[in-house]
Amino acid sequence: MARIVMKFGGTSVADLDRIHVVARHVKREVDAGHEVAVVVSAMAGKTNELVGWVEKMPKVAGADASFYDAREYDAVVASGEQVTSGLLAIALQSMGVDARSWQGWQIALKTDNAHGAARIDSIEGARLMERMSQGQVAVVAGFQGIGPDGRIATLGRGGSDTSAVAIAAAVKADRCDIYTDVDGVYTTDPRIEPRARRLPKVTFEEMLEMASLGAKVLQVRSVELAMTQGVRTFVRSSFEDPDAPGMGDFDNPPGTLICDEDEIVEQETVTGIAYAKDEAQISLRRVADRPGVSAGIFGPLAEANINVDMIVQNISEDGATTDITFTVPSGDLERAVKILSDAKETVGFDAIQSEGGLTKVSVIGIGMRSHTGVAATSFKAMAGRNINIRAITTSEIKISILIDGAYTELAVRTLHAAYGLDGK
Amino acid sequence: MARIVMKFGGTSVADLDRIHVVARHVKREVDAGHEVAVVVSAMAGKTNELVGWVEKMPKVAGADASFYDAREYDAVVASGEQVTSGLLAIALQSMGVDARSWQGWQIALKTDNAHGAARIDSIEGARLMERMSQGQVAVVAGFQGIGPDGRIATLGRGGSDTSAVAIAAAVKADRCDIYTDVDGVYTTDPRIEPRARRLPKVTFEEMLEMASLGAKVLQVRSVELAMTQGVRTFVRSSFEDPDAPGMGDFDNPPGTLICDEDEIVEQETVTGIAYAKDEAQISLRRVADRPGVSAGIFGPLAEANINVDMIVQNISEDGATTDITFTVPSGDLERAVKILSDAKETVGFDAIQSEGGLTKVSVIGIGMRSHTGVAATSFKAMAGRNINIRAITTSEIKISILIDGAYTELAVRTLHAAYGLDGK
Repeated sequence: MARIVMKFGGTSVADLDRIHVVARHVKREVDAGHEVAVVVSAMAGKTNELVGWVEKMPKVAGADASFYDAREYDAVVASGEQVTSGLLAIALQSMGVDARSWQGWQIALKTDNAHGAARIDSIEGARLMERMSQGQVAVVAGFQGIGPDGRIATLGRGGSDTSAVAIAAAVKADRCDIYTDVDGVYTTDPRIEPRARRLPKVTFEEMLEMASLGAKVLQVRSVELAMTQGVRTFVRSSFEDPDAPGMGDFDNPPGTLICDEDEIVEQETVTGIAYAKDEAQISLRRVADRPGVSAGIFGPLAEANINVDMIVQNISEDGATTDITFTVPSGDLERAVKILSDAKETVGFDAIQSEGGLTKVSVIGIGMRSHTGVAATSFKAMAGRNINIRAITTSEIKISILIDGAYTELAVRTLHAAYGLDGK
Repeated sequence: MARIVMKFGGTSVADLDRIHVVARHVKREVDAGHEVAVVVSAMAGKTNELVGWVEKMPKVAGADASFYDAREYDAVVASGEQVTSGLLAIALQSMGVDARSWQGWQIALKTDNAHGAARIDSIEGARLMERMSQGQVAVVAGFQGIGPDGRIATLGRGGSDTSAVAIAAAVKADRCDIYTDVDGVYTTDPRIEPRARRLPKVTFEEMLEMASLGAKVLQVRSVELAMTQGVRTFVRSSFEDPDAPGMGDFDNPPGTLICDEDEIVEQETVTGIAYAKDEAQISLRRVADRPGVSAGIFGPLAEANINVDMIVQNISEDGATTDITFTVPSGDLERAVKILSDAKETVGFDAIQSEGGLTKVSVIGIGMRSHTGVAATSFKAMAGRNINIRAITTSEIKISILIDGAYTELAVRTLHAAYGLDGK
């Protein structure tokens, strides 16, 4: 018997039939003798509808701009999870499973005061654990808690994953199962490379890189929290038949376990290939090489909420100035160029060059740390396909290369094969 | 300067444009220097949608019957008011009016444990009053509070009117303005009698009779509460231009004031004519005249949730048995007859006669208490139109007559004229 937290996202609770399927997944674990808490998102599309109302309300009321009180945003938007938590509790009860819904303020899941994107301060796990130990399923409205002001605070988009991991930590769960519309974490995107394999296990660190690089399986924040709290997190599908063979196998269910490195006995050098499309490159030529110049460039971009990613700095030909190259999302390219052009005099550079439509392909693997020559394999593979590498950044467990977007699929497949990831 | 509670129903907050109109009504009162609390319902149709989900969920989950946990019903259904309270607060803020939303559990509006149809136990008015006195509009989610179990409890359908009156009592408001889709209380239904007049004032007792008799302006419960708490309640339209002349006139706004008898200087004998269609009549012939016979008849009907209304009992021809006649809603007639037929032996009667498609027309007026011959006017007027009276019941301030449904409009118009209610 174990204690499990199960989390279901918006597509998994999109309507009453889907909620019934969720209830069957939960009942399977209850019938196996486990103590269960379930964390649910709002019905698919509902949060967008509520956010849309909040964003439109000020203009409908005659305001010039769409400013609104984040505390009211929270009151409105948190209602979506309130609905699904109640409905799932009813579905479970109808199937003979003892269950009750818990709103964030009832638990209480306490957050800071940053309404709209609050961080979790603490969770009172004792009440939930008491009920769970009595056999009652706790159905928790995800994405929300209560702030120090006594008002509802939401955790920001995708916050239900974070709720689930935090609750798993609070109730000392053996595992946090994140049910989603994919059945696990793959070596790369199976739509690009059909030979992609589902990984049975992946480390927190690798998952964090994959999530940051656009793998939409899990929210970055929830992976961070799982890592720091040591919550074994399991990614699995909510669209499989809840009673299919193996679904209730506690030790080896279908999906991907995200866990500590020491749980993975034989570590592969490279675990997966991720990619992020729609990147743009900006190069500033002959930037005056003096203290504060980076702040002059990246400060204004940060203020404009433009996310700067790969940054490469070279000594330029003349030896007295530098060339600085970095990437931004393609959608922000025009704004970024405008901001930098305006700052040309104060920063001091000769010219701006920019190009959109690029892709960042990343090779990820915790085993890289103990292997040499991993990057060289990438460069050789790209050269073999005549794919030009525009920029390179590396970390302990990741190599990222920037290429023309047209080569995205070819590059992903080439790297997948080069690192021996292709399934049989 | 006064303290006002304003209540807006579902059609008044049906979409963002309507919520903006509500905000304009509120701003008008704030600009006039009043302290304001607003109570809102869910968007029109939203509560029905949520209730529909709750009612369908058990069957979708495979249960034989549609039983569900009323506490979960409350969690789901209360979300509708949470949304509109937040949106209205945003609309007000966008118009430069300080405002915040209050959920039932935040106030706290404490109820008993009868989830789904809870009664209000107490309201902590101090926090609301403090904020209101600082000029902040309190936007309260209607229809809900928090039970002794710490969970959301709803007050039953139409509970927002009751919330508003209770909050008006708690904050010692000078008036509770109920904004609705009609502009006041009329001497009768203007769709039947175009010469119906809007009443400037009506007593709590009269309003209670009118509400019970099908005038849909106010919930019976809210009128009862207003009467016992002495809350001056004002019925007015949310569909008029908020800035039309006279709308902000504190002493004499357009609408109908429901108040204590002593506020009405010159009391009319008859205040209005109400009617309830789709009544059915059941007569039990030659019922054994012995103790307990009424319990034998009405007990089983009450258990089946059939609402019995006018009850008339006559000594029958033989002098040893009685005839008992009463009304039920037409929709319940078939069930009622079945229940009584089953009980024929135990109750002891000769025959059942029944007929549907009847109408109860009622003449209401607190002035009846001090006038004689009021009923005779009704009987004479009906006779003059050849309308057969099937049953009569009277109270201190009401005369009800049961007639064929086909004569409904004629009877209403005839009585309206007979009691001198026609406008010029």
